[in-house]
Amino acid sequence: MTEQRLGILGGMGPQATQDFYQRILDRTDASCDQEHLPTLIWSDTSMPDRTAAILGGDAEGCYRRLLEGARLLERGGCTVLAIPCNTSHYFADRLQGEISIPLIHMPRETVGVLAAAGQKKVGILATDGTVQTGIYQKECGARGIEAAAPPPEVQKLVMSIIYDEIKRGEKGSREKFAVIDKWLRAAGCGGAILACTELSVYRTYHGLPDYYLDAMDVLAEKCITACGYKLRMV
Amino acid sequence: MTEQRLGILGGMGPQATQDFYQRILDRTDASCDQEHLPTLIWSDTSMPDRTAAILGGDAEGCYRRLLEGARLLERGGCTVLAIPCNTSHYFADRLQGEISIPLIHMPRETVGVLAAAGQKKVGILATDGTVQTGIYQKECGARGIEAAAPPPEVQKLVMSIIYDEIKRGEKGSREKFAVIDKWLRAAGCGGAILACTELSVYRTYHGLPDYYLDAMDVLAEKCITACGYKLRMV
Repeated sequence: MTEQRLGILGGMGPQATQDFYQRILDRTDASCDQEHLPTLIWSDTSMPDRTAAILGGDAEGCYRRLLEGARLLERGGCTVLAIPCNTSHYFADRLQGEISIPLIHMPRETVGVLAAAGQKKVGILATDGTVQTGIYQKECGARGIEAAAPPPEVQKLVMSIIYDEIKRGEKGSREKFAVIDKWLRAAGCGGAILACTELSVYRTYHGLPDYYLDAMDVLAEKCITACGYKLRMV
Repeated sequence: MTEQRLGILGGMGPQATQDFYQRILDRTDASCDQEHLPTLIWSDTSMPDRTAAILGGDAEGCYRRLLEGARLLERGGCTVLAIPCNTSHYFADRLQGEISIPLIHMPRETVGVLAAAGQKKVGILATDGTVQTGIYQKECGARGIEAAAPPPEVQKLVMSIIYDEIKRGEKGSREKFAVIDKWLRAAGCGGAILACTELSVYRTYHGLPDYYLDAMDVLAEKCITACGYKLRMV
């Protein structure tokens, strides 16, 4: 096999990029440096806010910047590309059409895992931006899964955990999460997607049952196997 | 000011690279993503072991690989280069002569901090390779500081923490470190340099007093200021 090189197009934000690379390291079955994936990471911190750009700003400028970053990684010898940012996947198919290396599609792969598990209805826990762009709903629809976004009063709690708590360095309120959990079960969801990095952080602090599938975990695992490396058993 | 872009030549090992980038994020005075340094990270995990290469293997091959990585980052638009691997600085001056962007010299900057603090004698905690190549001793000598390397039985414990523990994903043994600490104090060292990125990782896990100056911390701070960004007060 020719040498594989993972490209991570990140900086959206930089801490999410950092968390994502940590998962790659943690989940790779390696006993020395040389058994880890060669990885080129472009943390483009000057990337504009994706949600704002897509929902009413300069979506085209945002896309151009993503494409520029993807090409930088391609020129840098990467053979596989990953973007650890849910919202950016709004542009994923268009981006894939303009580069020659495979982009591992985080929402698609995540929904694929749920489809393989026979899920029929799942909850989408994400920022207003990710929910409104319909990225996850579209992928779920393509696999015959019903995607349930929380009603406004529950979505407010999701946003509050993300913005008022985790993004400010707090651990996140179990009480708020309990309300979200109760809604998901009452709505008949067989599972839920953690489609936002801050919710992955909440999971790290508090632990969550397998009912919650972490999109960034799925992306990390797919990157490792796509590059021909083995997953560490956990 | 033109846009600065930090290049991190890493993968030696990948966890140290990860830890180094976390320090860049933690120490930058930023209140949003866009206030962080644009950073390109090349985690070259297939880089051969530097200690083995320098002390009896293919030092030239190792140097070529470093140069190749530095040039990849230079072509990727980086304006400042950092290598979060102490042993690799054996080649630093030669490497600087062949690239056109400044390489921030980790051992030189670290010893500079100790000299400014008036240190007269310090311990060097590093791999056999870093100790035997005399990288830190040379920099200390140039600043009038006595550099004390541990005797073989203590050096063995240093190597064991690095290779048997941290590089394998473990947190490192406090018992082994206690023996090292005892030797340093008995030898009359006014401080010690954590001159191996895996020891910096040990410090992240366990915490260590200011007696230990972490070369990777010094490098992170110098990178932030060299790129024209501000340090977060701690």
